[in-house]
Amino acid sequence: MTEDHLVSLGELDRFCREAFLAVGANAETADSATRAMMHGTTLGVDSHGVRLLPHYLTALEGGRLNKNPQPKKAGGFGAVEVWDADHAQGAVGTYRGMARAIELAGSFGIGAVGVRNGSHFGPAGAYAIKAARAGMIGITFCNSDSFVRLHDGAMRFHGTNPIAVAAPAPGQPWLLDMATSAIPYNRVQLYQSLGVTLPESVASDAQGIDTRDAHLADMLAPVGAEFGFKGAALAGVVEIFSAVLTGMRLSFDILPMGGPDMETPREMGSFVLAVNPDAFTPRSTFDAGMARYMNTLRNSPMREGCRVMAPGDREWLVADERRQNGVRLDPVTIAGFTDWADKLGLSLPGA
Amino acid sequence: MTEDHLVSLGELDRFCREAFLAVGANAETADSATRAMMHGTTLGVDSHGVRLLPHYLTALEGGRLNKNPQPKKAGGFGAVEVWDADHAQGAVGTYRGMARAIELAGSFGIGAVGVRNGSHFGPAGAYAIKAARAGMIGITFCNSDSFVRLHDGAMRFHGTNPIAVAAPAPGQPWLLDMATSAIPYNRVQLYQSLGVTLPESVASDAQGIDTRDAHLADMLAPVGAEFGFKGAALAGVVEIFSAVLTGMRLSFDILPMGGPDMETPREMGSFVLAVNPDAFTPRSTFDAGMARYMNTLRNSPMREGCRVMAPGDREWLVADERRQNGVRLDPVTIAGFTDWADKLGLSLPGA
Repeated sequence: MTEDHLVSLGELDRFCREAFLAVGANAETADSATRAMMHGTTLGVDSHGVRLLPHYLTALEGGRLNKNPQPKKAGGFGAVEVWDADHAQGAVGTYRGMARAIELAGSFGIGAVGVRNGSHFGPAGAYAIKAARAGMIGITFCNSDSFVRLHDGAMRFHGTNPIAVAAPAPGQPWLLDMATSAIPYNRVQLYQSLGVTLPESVASDAQGIDTRDAHLADMLAPVGAEFGFKGAALAGVVEIFSAVLTGMRLSFDILPMGGPDMETPREMGSFVLAVNPDAFTPRSTFDAGMARYMNTLRNSPMREGCRVMAPGDREWLVADERRQNGVRLDPVTIAGFTDWADKLGLSLPGA
Repeated sequence: MTEDHLVSLGELDRFCREAFLAVGANAETADSATRAMMHGTTLGVDSHGVRLLPHYLTALEGGRLNKNPQPKKAGGFGAVEVWDADHAQGAVGTYRGMARAIELAGSFGIGAVGVRNGSHFGPAGAYAIKAARAGMIGITFCNSDSFVRLHDGAMRFHGTNPIAVAAPAPGQPWLLDMATSAIPYNRVQLYQSLGVTLPESVASDAQGIDTRDAHLADMLAPVGAEFGFKGAALAGVVEIFSAVLTGMRLSFDILPMGGPDMETPREMGSFVLAVNPDAFTPRSTFDAGMARYMNTLRNSPMREGCRVMAPGDREWLVADERRQNGVRLDPVTIAGFTDWADKLGLSLPGA
């Protein structure tokens, strides 16, 4: 397994599952965490793909993540439930939460679940798309440790606080999975190592002043450039739903993802919502509306030399290509996989 | 009443109500439409304040808006209801919808209402804040006639499609009310008349190419600048919830707000959601979380010479000032008010 080799998605899935089980994680953790990461890697969201495996294994061994969590319903009222994830890897509680939200939306037209005592859950879109595959609109919010300044702020205040929304549509779902920061922090790290200049208005120095020098970048900017108050407010929506509503930690109170403390549970919240279109309008009307929206969008006039795509379209293209050809891993991930394969006695993922 | 005179908020409220009744609108229309516009004018959202009065009066006289609408429940399931606004001025159905969503959230922990056969509803925040005043989190979505290109698009595709979210907080609510375009179209018109250069990445010519010349601006850019795919996708969220889910018109199918056809109802949808924090966590936990979030935000380090504010803070300052001193109207609004006062035999709003 080198940078020059393509690895098959099936082999990556196999390796992740074996590694989780080998460190003593239970079957649900291995399954949920692998599915979430494979959503990221399959769709080209590599920042939230299998590169996270070594991190999660370290957190399971350290005790930050519970190897044998027993998630349970901790409250609820009508179309709302609260689940306690028992300090599981983040995908465990959020997949459970979305499964319940979909069931609640079947009973009440809409269902919301707040998940307590979770942790980093990978790609937000992995959970929203569960709802779309079940014929519903899904929304996922989760805050994270602070990296992003406020508009005119000079402090790492919000996490990259993603918003994911998915809706059933002809062919593949409509899928939005966006950070409320302009860019992810790992892009800053990448540009540092490559010596590349950052785009304008995406990162700031320690005084909150925009910088294009990746080495001076201390925090990210909220999405929106000079209208960054909109991006910061959207991060606030995520904060209110995922942390305040669940009684979990605000971004600036969450232990840093990268440690050094890998023993203490991070007490993160997440929020999922499922909306059943059938409660609002005949399914044929909903489907016709989505079809007209998507078709008009994909065939609309575009800037010369550009291409207009619906949210998710780029991802489905990547997924098709990777399912056929496999995926090339980055050097850091290859090194991490190699270390853990040696330690756990596993065979590395093959072509 | 001239540009140099301050007009009291109470007098503006009185004039709007009298004008609606004088053209034959029913009491609910006069009340709802006035309250929504006064939310805008009081908080400094002048684009969606009383400047809209002449437009609504014209639409009521023309027949686009029903003077005597009888909104009724048209469907529902569990925590969801669908209301038919009977082609009322937009505030009528959306206020009714939010009132029902709040009641549903009292019964089910969450409540969602889709409103059919509505029309332009003014400031989205007016409805979301109703939920916050009732102790709940409120969300409002509404699409509108097309003004905004897609990312890399060259067509007026989405409306300015606002997102409003309000949450109860110590003192005044947390209140986000944002267009998913970079700026409102009336700022382009203002800059045309003033001969001022537009900011970068906010408007495009007919080929979708960014322009800073307000006279060449044919469409708005989605918020996000080079990350405008995020703004365009957020506009899509609004489209799916307000139009597809209600079976109403997509932005590019809505008759232009400004006419010339002021007879045909516009068949617009809107969507409101209320979330009851009590269904998730003890109220004291929720309140403590909001307080810590707001206090940390307002006291966080900021860029030199700048001020960090929570969403809504600027608006509460404007409201305090205007309640005390009144408000100065723009020349176009003064002219419109004068014409309608003459026509309807009303006295103009005073100091």
